[in-house]
Amino acid sequence: MEATLTDARERTASRVDYQTDPSRYQHWQLKFAGPLATLFMDTKEEGGLRPGYKLKLNSYDLGVDIELHDALQRIRFEHPEVRAVILTSAKSRVFCSGANIYMLGTSSHAWKVNFCKFTNETRNGMEDASQHSGVKFLAACNGTTAGGGYELALACDEIYLIDDRSSAVSLPELPLLGVLPGTGGLTRVTDKRKVRRDLADMFCTVSEGVQGERAKQWRLVDEIVKPAQWNEAVQKRAQEMAAKSDRPAGQKGVSLAPLQRTIDDVGYHYEFVDVAFDRAARTATFTVKAPEAAAARTLDQILAAGANWWPLQMARELDDAILSARTNELELGLWIMKTSGSADAVLEMDKQLIAHKDNWFVREVANMIRRMLCRLDVSARSIYAVIEEGSCFAGTLFELALAADRAYMLNLADNPEATFVALSEMNFGPLFMSNGLPRIAARFYEEAAEMERARALLGKRIPGEQALETGLVTAAPDELDWADELRLAIEARSALSPDALTGLEANLRFGLPETMHTRIFARLSAWQNWIFNRPNAVGATGALKVYGSGTKAKFNWERV
Amino acid sequence: MEATLTDARERTASRVDYQTDPSRYQHWQLKFAGPLATLFMDTKEEGGLRPGYKLKLNSYDLGVDIELHDALQRIRFEHPEVRAVILTSAKSRVFCSGANIYMLGTSSHAWKVNFCKFTNETRNGMEDASQHSGVKFLAACNGTTAGGGYELALACDEIYLIDDRSSAVSLPELPLLGVLPGTGGLTRVTDKRKVRRDLADMFCTVSEGVQGERAKQWRLVDEIVKPAQWNEAVQKRAQEMAAKSDRPAGQKGVSLAPLQRTIDDVGYHYEFVDVAFDRAARTATFTVKAPEAAAARTLDQILAAGANWWPLQMARELDDAILSARTNELELGLWIMKTSGSADAVLEMDKQLIAHKDNWFVREVANMIRRMLCRLDVSARSIYAVIEEGSCFAGTLFELALAADRAYMLNLADNPEATFVALSEMNFGPLFMSNGLPRIAARFYEEAAEMERARALLGKRIPGEQALETGLVTAAPDELDWADELRLAIEARSALSPDALTGLEANLRFGLPETMHTRIFARLSAWQNWIFNRPNAVGATGALKVYGSGTKAKFNWERV
Repeated sequence: MEATLTDARERTASRVDYQTDPSRYQHWQLKFAGPLATLFMDTKEEGGLRPGYKLKLNSYDLGVDIELHDALQRIRFEHPEVRAVILTSAKSRVFCSGANIYMLGTSSHAWKVNFCKFTNETRNGMEDASQHSGVKFLAACNGTTAGGGYELALACDEIYLIDDRSSAVSLPELPLLGVLPGTGGLTRVTDKRKVRRDLADMFCTVSEGVQGERAKQWRLVDEIVKPAQWNEAVQKRAQEMAAKSDRPAGQKGVSLAPLQRTIDDVGYHYEFVDVAFDRAARTATFTVKAPEAAAARTLDQILAAGANWWPLQMARELDDAILSARTNELELGLWIMKTSGSADAVLEMDKQLIAHKDNWFVREVANMIRRMLCRLDVSARSIYAVIEEGSCFAGTLFELALAADRAYMLNLADNPEATFVALSEMNFGPLFMSNGLPRIAARFYEEAAEMERARALLGKRIPGEQALETGLVTAAPDELDWADELRLAIEARSALSPDALTGLEANLRFGLPETMHTRIFARLSAWQNWIFNRPNAVGATGALKVYGSGTKAKFNWERV
Repeated sequence: MEATLTDARERTASRVDYQTDPSRYQHWQLKFAGPLATLFMDTKEEGGLRPGYKLKLNSYDLGVDIELHDALQRIRFEHPEVRAVILTSAKSRVFCSGANIYMLGTSSHAWKVNFCKFTNETRNGMEDASQHSGVKFLAACNGTTAGGGYELALACDEIYLIDDRSSAVSLPELPLLGVLPGTGGLTRVTDKRKVRRDLADMFCTVSEGVQGERAKQWRLVDEIVKPAQWNEAVQKRAQEMAAKSDRPAGQKGVSLAPLQRTIDDVGYHYEFVDVAFDRAARTATFTVKAPEAAAARTLDQILAAGANWWPLQMARELDDAILSARTNELELGLWIMKTSGSADAVLEMDKQLIAHKDNWFVREVANMIRRMLCRLDVSARSIYAVIEEGSCFAGTLFELALAADRAYMLNLADNPEATFVALSEMNFGPLFMSNGLPRIAARFYEEAAEMERARALLGKRIPGEQALETGLVTAAPDELDWADELRLAIEARSALSPDALTGLEANLRFGLPETMHTRIFARLSAWQNWIFNRPNAVGATGALKVYGSGTKAKFNWERV
């Protein structure tokens, strides 16, 4: 008992919290001027999330990225007038020197992987904001732009580099640390910026990087600007980019009020989301609650509801729960998804999401739900959906079943209508995966017959047997088998190798087509995670371990 | 000196040789009957390539796969009459039980990765033969079809499973061994057979697999057949598949005579390919020699030349050298590609390859060159092309420069014509990478302007400066800088972390689009290699290590 209490206290003390707000930022300044926002990176050396390293030279750790992520959310929701964001540094002579190396060198494999995953999501989110929300990003690299710093710039639509004879862009991870530029760097240099492969090879294998005219010739940056013209050129270009945005004029932002939640040792408790841990079974049960009715009936009412509009509040709560559980509860390997509440209310709100999709706020909410689901897809946890009496797997909430590795649905022989699922237009387009496919299309490999069979059921209550026949659920046991089958499925899953499951799910969940974002998580992250396990990086004489110690790395020279 | 001699003797004793022929097969029987060939798997328990394990139940190791690869080559070249291949087992009640687990459990990480790479290439080669050479494959699974055994069946066009109430198809790697079905299994179950993702999840997490009607319903097999109808049904279906082949009638095969080579401690020496090791520098220099003239002038002369036709002999020699060096010389991390001989002769033979592309043999030779180059792409070695006086980087041989991470070209100021490269139609289509793109299209991201600029130079001698301007080479130093620049580039490359380079090159060489075959090497293999490094698989209590010992695996339960 004592041990358990101590464990619980330690968990509380070390828990990472993804919630913040601008009044608490330590590392960023966010300034607004009409259609432009400027994000100044200014990391506080002593402000590391964990002890043991200093955030010198605008290097970052997870805490810095949590603030960046929050700032981007605020720009999306609270500042609809912002059409372009200038990402720059408040420090002189350095834009950003990337992920803090001492943090990487001293952190566990799990920490490194989770850190990279979140930073990847945040950078993908910037591209998502550009493509789907009309927020354009200009990286104004006013000094050294190294490693993760350049990767951050790569996530922007355009990159300006100061031409001061010393500031270079570089990806020195390989020569200096024996690891990859793993936060999308390699993938964006090729897929996005289309740097010729041999030049990319040169660029990624020299630690000093490339500056000036050559950086532009190689397509590593879009423009180089002398210091005297810098501010003017950056402002001018940002204004031009803003002019291409489709964000609205004269709209009031929606304030992202702090999430109301309690966290204790047995779970997370929000208004619409509850997460219950079972540490012995190594499961976390997520229950998402729908309201009994759609409170807002008109667009004005939706805008008035703002952050309390259920689709947004639910998505924010679930997003926070996903982030918290995947960072803080590493041993809870199986996430069980449940729902409750009124399916009619969810389907009604899905209709509103579709009907008002051209409204900036409603579009932003749909984007938020979509991005939250994409986060779920890459959370490295097994997912079962459990569909019972009182469940509400309808439309948007049915995505949780589609995202699951398996969906178990109770089939009550004498009351088949008591348990049902339902589809809405939200399942057939707006909530697409990072490969661009709606989950139902990925499930059915876009095969016409299967897709039509599913579409024909739009809006209907689909009982267990029909859901099984239509291929919408994995199994539909009757009440005699239900408890046992579910229990056995959970126990069997929880007994399997966690690493092998992560690999299995990363393969089965994502099929063709691959996109830049799926390639970042698969090709790039998978190789990086392999390298993060190799003695040449993390062994006693590995490059990441000895960096800064004055000792030279010693490699095993075998090529594998 | 003594140590060096001992090292050399040990290398000789343990060297893996990829050359074999049917008279030496231990594990396969290959029978021919008109348009059908039957490949019977019949592994010899005591015939393992390494000591320490028995190849029970048609389990396989690298040696078994080397014979399979040889058999497929013989079918392609020596038996143009074969239109369909039945892949089955000579043992009763077992088709194939997959890669030998004890072999995997006792082998090094490098060995496992190399083994999986070659088996992947062989299976991809079966699909390549089906798609590009008209050889169709029917897996006749006449007994237990487990793990790599099912992955072998998945590489066939169709799968028949005997319906005897006991024979199942299964992928038990995850539940039994804590690793993935890593020889394309996960990728083919989804991308090729389009098994619904949740069913694939069920299938891959139960060790007993799926049999009978359910196996067909889930799309895991194409047909199930009762034992009494088995032989007849298999023959009938194979004949039907043969009828769809475009292989020729009444053509005589080309015998694949043994390659003439000598192997010593400083290199491999073939007629047209020489590989020189520099162990201190950790490099291997490949020199490919073109003849002084194209000996065969007509299609008849080409057919008469057969295996001695330069394009085929060169490709076979280079393929063997690539396989040997990547398996046996792990520390030679940088491959330097050189060429010599007559560019005119190569361009002439390229014209023949294009002109006679509908002839089965010429088609097969072009396919062989293409497959050899695809092997080079995934060989996990850095590649520099070095273009000097006397070089012959023309057409097909220019692919070696396009496959390289960098190409260095000497630019003689007072005699710029002395060093040149040349393009042919072979660079613009037939030798596409595994992602379907010609290397030059991948290099230029298919951008029209760049592609047209290159096409305009077809057949011309392109000197250094022009090659640099056109983006065909990475650097073109003059004679003053040449030796130093090359030396520094080689030394710098050889000093970098071997693992990080493997990851870098796997990312930079392959861009979008991804295909099933690129996904097998990237998404699947990268995750598998990560798992192969994790204690949950290979640690003292890891699942792969303890398999068969009676001890249960102990896992670290953290999900990463």
